[in-house]
Amino acid sequence: MAVVTFLSDFGTRDGFVAAMKGVVVAGAPGATLVDAAHDIEPGDIEAAAFVLGQYWSLFPPGTIHLAVVDPGVGSARKPLIVVADQRRVVAPDNGLISRVVAAAEDWRCYEVTANRYLPPNPSATFHGRDIFAPVAARLAAGVTPEELGRGFAQPLLLKLEPPIREKSRLRGRIAHVDRFGNLISDIPAGWLDVPWRFRVGERDVGPVRRTYSDAAVGEPVVVVGSLGTVEIAVRGGSAAEGIGAGRGAEVVAVV
Amino acid sequence: MAVVTFLSDFGTRDGFVAAMKGVVVAGAPGATLVDAAHDIEPGDIEAAAFVLGQYWSLFPPGTIHLAVVDPGVGSARKPLIVVADQRRVVAPDNGLISRVVAAAEDWRCYEVTANRYLPPNPSATFHGRDIFAPVAARLAAGVTPEELGRGFAQPLLLKLEPPIREKSRLRGRIAHVDRFGNLISDIPAGWLDVPWRFRVGERDVGPVRRTYSDAAVGEPVVVVGSLGTVEIAVRGGSAAEGIGAGRGAEVVAVV
Amino acid sequence: MAVVTFLSDFGTRDGFVAAMKGVVVAGAPGATLVDAAHDIEPGDIEAAAFVLGQYWSLFPPGTIHLAVVDPGVGSARKPLIVVADQRRVVAPDNGLISRVVAAAEDWRCYEVTANRYLPPNPSATFHGRDIFAPVAARLAAGVTPEELGRGFAQPLLLKLEPPIREKSRLRGRIAHVDRFGNLISDIPAGWLDVPWRFRVGERDVGPVRRTYSDAAVGEPVVVVGSLGTVEIAVRGGSAAEGIGAGRGAEVVAVV
Repeated sequence: MAVVTFLSDFGTRDGFVAAMKGVVVAGAPGATLVDAAHDIEPGDIEAAAFVLGQYWSLFPPGTIHLAVVDPGVGSARKPLIVVADQRRVVAPDNGLISRVVAAAEDWRCYEVTANRYLPPNPSATFHGRDIFAPVAARLAAGVTPEELGRGFAQPLLLKLEPPIREKSRLRGRIAHVDRFGNLISDIPAGWLDVPWRFRVGERDVGPVRRTYSDAAVGEPVVVVGSLGTVEIAVRGGSAAEGIGAGRGAEVVAVV
Repeated sequence: MAVVTFLSDFGTRDGFVAAMKGVVVAGAPGATLVDAAHDIEPGDIEAAAFVLGQYWSLFPPGTIHLAVVDPGVGSARKPLIVVADQRRVVAPDNGLISRVVAAAEDWRCYEVTANRYLPPNPSATFHGRDIFAPVAARLAAGVTPEELGRGFAQPLLLKLEPPIREKSRLRGRIAHVDRFGNLISDIPAGWLDVPWRFRVGERDVGPVRRTYSDAAVGEPVVVVGSLGTVEIAVRGGSAAEGIGAGRGAEVVAVV
Repeated sequence: MAVVTFLSDFGTRDGFVAAMKGVVVAGAPGATLVDAAHDIEPGDIEAAAFVLGQYWSLFPPGTIHLAVVDPGVGSARKPLIVVADQRRVVAPDNGLISRVVAAAEDWRCYEVTANRYLPPNPSATFHGRDIFAPVAARLAAGVTPEELGRGFAQPLLLKLEPPIREKSRLRGRIAHVDRFGNLISDIPAGWLDVPWRFRVGERDVGPVRRTYSDAAVGEPVVVVGSLGTVEIAVRGGSAAEGIGAGRGAEVVAVV
């Protein structure tokens, strides 16, 4: 049976997540439900896009990733299905799919249009339950994206400015701050062929080490993170707090 | 196989939830386990009742909803099974089932009495593991409510004062504050046939709009929420904080 | 199919947990995934060991418990498989398994060595995804611990100082503070054969009662907790805050 994952900013103290799950289970009995993360900051599409990028391709082909961080719920933004490397993502057209699309070898996008598969009177405030979950359930039950919508070539994508490699300098940005306060940059490990020395904003954080344990407790350490990019941590603490930097902060390396 | 959902105030940093799941899996191999919500404020039965009301009927017939917010654990309060519109709720007799019972077309209640299905020496502090989960597991394994208990006509129900429609005024209350700080009232959308103007406490929050996006960022907006009642939000923020209101606050509409 | 549980300090706002689940689902299709707890304080091995101890044995034989609280990720600490009373625990060798080993009737330990089952270039920062989840998936798919590693007799174990029974005094410690602020000690219920009176640090908390409801709201109450040890609570509040005590605090009983 199909695997359906759930990503949202609905938190874990209300019934929103459970409502979506109920709709999926009712529409696709036997589906395997998997919680991804529900404590995305309310409305933080960039964080949701990053988090989805951390796991979507690790699930097997056929998996359906339901992702609902939807501050524009009820407005004209479209509901989408993205088929990317044989996984399916169901999400609002607000940029949430950006990192899936950026990483996929092959993708195509559909706008959901087939109202016969949806409840007749969806609420204006909870499309997670009334549109996205029903679509995920139909996909899990074997309905094709083509039956649910029509091709849509121009989904909204976040502007992800690429990092820059200059002759004697690398320049990138913090793309995400994780639970531990680690600062995950967009600078790829493939650029670490010379002994760069990094700084975040004005703060020197040193050269790249192999692992967190290569710094003293409380000290910053630069490592290659789990997504293959440069990451700045503070051993046993929060780099975001210790260094006073957040998403979007500039990361520069010089020789 | 049966679907079993889990609602609690046990949080996500201890082993209480996992202990209940272990008991269910051990007693009903193959059951599908679904987390509803575990960050109900400790002991907040009203919030738990509301949250359960958000999802119980969306799951398919046969689903077992385990709901354990149980500040009176170890006292004489009874363990209940409520069969409501073909779903089963297993919960303490403290009002948690109130909104299920209020919404169900058809329900009946049992007090769990069949000790042969329960551990011989249940703890006095964790009936979630020692009574409610075993009962849910038995139900999931096909044991009937009649085998597990006896009919019980008078479960404790929260006093849910109904909203009032007067000639030129509506009066209701905030029934729940959700994660986003949205104030969910008990005033039904069916009463919105005239252009009411709402206030929460002393604060004017305007007429009903279609969706959150119909207000400026930071401004209050009144919408019909996902449960079909009037909801007061602040776009891009928390109405609870912005308006300074919480559960129980009075909501009034005048023409 | 196999049941796989997940315990971590990865929280519920990033994609780490989902990444591990993706690896398990991809490697063991049809496995039942069960979230235990993900909000262990970052790097708090003692708390993780306690929490794992709350549930590991309640799951049926054959269950695989994946437990990743791994502040030493990337260092030389070994990845382990512990087979304990027919359950399997996959965890780093940092003491996390201590309470499983202490409670098991029968256990043996393996160091994971079979690189052919692991990704060729594991990251240095996320062994949860690159080592522990692949091992859990292989176990779930039927590979034996012997195929995955070799016997390892001396896993790191936390020093769990046993409580002391003297002639007219009991002395123990707070082993864990749970979400409710309850102080869970290591003093076994079996020692409560005389009418002891307890104190935590300097604070007298009275004799053992049957249940939380046996104290007035706001007052401390000593009960036998769900793990069969003495627990100090404050009815309707947090004992940790009310008494000002935490893990490691001394608990003393006198007649």
